Amino acid sequence: MNEFEARIRESFGRQTMMQTLGAELAKIDAGRVTILAPILAGSLQQHGAGHAGLAFSIGDSAAGYSALSLMPEGAEVMTVEMKINLMAPAVGDHLIAEGRVIRPGRRIMVVAADVWSVTADKRKHVAILQGTMIPV
Amino acid sequence: MNEFEARIRESFGRQTMMQTLGAELAKIDAGRVTILAPILAGSLQQHGAGHAGLAFSIGDSAAGYSALSLMPEGAEVMTVEMKINLMAPAVGDHLIAEGRVIRPGRRIMVVAADVWSVTADKRKHVAILQGTMIPV
Amino acid sequence: MNEFEARIRESFGRQTMMQTLGAELAKIDAGRVTILAPILAGSLQQHGAGHAGLAFSIGDSAAGYSALSLMPEGAEVMTVEMKINLMAPAVGDHLIAEGRVIRPGRRIMVVAADVWSVTADKRKHVAILQGTMIPV
Amino acid sequence: MNEFEARIRESFGRQTMMQTLGAELAKIDAGRVTILAPILAGSLQQHGAGHAGLAFSIGDSAAGYSALSLMPEGAEVMTVEMKINLMAPAVGDHLIAEGRVIRPGRRIMVVAADVWSVTADKRKHVAILQGTMIPV
Repeated sequence: MNEFEARIRESFGRQTMMQTLGAELAKIDAGRVTILAPILAGSLQQHGAGHAGLAFSIGDSAAGYSALSLMPEGAEVMTVEMKINLMAPAVGDHLIAEGRVIRPGRRIMVVAADVWSVTADKRKHVAILQGTMIPV
Repeated sequence: MNEFEARIRESFGRQTMMQTLGAELAKIDAGRVTILAPILAGSLQQHGAGHAGLAFSIGDSAAGYSALSLMPEGAEVMTVEMKINLMAPAVGDHLIAEGRVIRPGRRIMVVAADVWSVTADKRKHVAILQGTMIPV
Repeated sequence: MNEFEARIRESFGRQTMMQTLGAELAKIDAGRVTILAPILAGSLQQHGAGHAGLAFSIGDSAAGYSALSLMPEGAEVMTVEMKINLMAPAVGDHLIAEGRVIRPGRRIMVVAADVWSVTADKRKHVAILQGTMIPV
Repeated sequence: MNEFEARIRESFGRQTMMQTLGAELAKIDAGRVTILAPILAGSLQQHGAGHAGLAFSIGDSAAGYSALSLMPEGAEVMTVEMKINLMAPAVGDHLIAEGRVIRPGRRIMVVAADVWSVTADKRKHVAILQGTMIPV
């Protein structure tokens, strides 16, 4: 396990929101982090699909940790702003959020994430996020 | 209780994400809806403040219900996109999200929300949201 | 003329895009700057209304200068990100963009702007912007 | 020349803002449209780089026409909202904006664009846009 993976797993473990949502780190590469989450009975909107806040939360964390993977040891990451476009209802077996760094920078990191809903035989693109992270 | 308040309370009651976050409807007016949420031990980011997804979730729902309050009976509301700027850590006794309609429309509703953290003697502006809702 | 007004007028004078669009500084207060622009024959989209880029350009500059008004002397301002919701066609005698600082900060300034179209007897809210500025 | 290319060229020709900025259509495919623009002396911000409004304008138009390419004949396209993250100063020989459809829909089209600055021997990623288009 490389150095940034240890840092990311440690930080993720302190994000109690991720535990509440049942989310887990699925894949960690430099500049690219994937989070997987079930669509729990407690994460729904009024029509029975995953709440926008579920897709946002795992997309934001995946994007944030993709940024952290490129930051120097000892740094922590904070979301400055994040925008989400919701493209389809979050229904299926679970969600996958893939975060990535679009442009690393010392002061500002531009990040993005895709959120997919997954069933046994297909996956559907349910949301895209674009935002800004800073080291703190 | 006016007609849209009943509709909003009924829809909110089906958003299990709001129950998971401990959120409740605090005030319902035409075009303006306020949601209150504690900062639960299960809603935190890695530094012990409320997760961006908490502020997003209640801001998004407050904005969505402000839109629903101006939609015809029988309509339901869906988030097309939402952008959040995070301005301060979400720490305090609880959060308040005030959603409002900036421009109502038959096809498209432009909405906004402010999120405040509240302690016994002061409140702090922690996030602003700007987005688009559609009737479904 | 106070110190920040001189700085803003000098910087605005170097923004040749503002001259191309016929824009001018209409009002400068601490944390709040207004820009006025005609809807020139050369600023249109395909239906004959002002192009989204016109509302964006003056909204972005108004927001940026509202941030600059609160920055220390010698600082310059740069847009990190900006989001615009377009609410009505930009038609009328001219446009007014009112920029304001939502939250000042040493590293990050959160800003917003409203764009209005104005005719002899009424004004219409055509766009809202929400974004992030940094000192450079 | 296919049917949507004719429609896009005709619509682009009516966008006088594109002529003011010296922009031209460089490539038109289904769901993907590229616009090229010089960094004119009249398109600058205060530091001599291209104004945020230049990158926004060509990015927005490229994204809009990528959506129009997938709409039925007779439709026209309108920007509902657009967010831009600016990643580097717009300096170089010219800019290229590549717009694409992320998710087509009958009511709502989710689009994105990348803006690059180009010099003789390299290109630099200067901005990304993410937004919503609707047919009108």
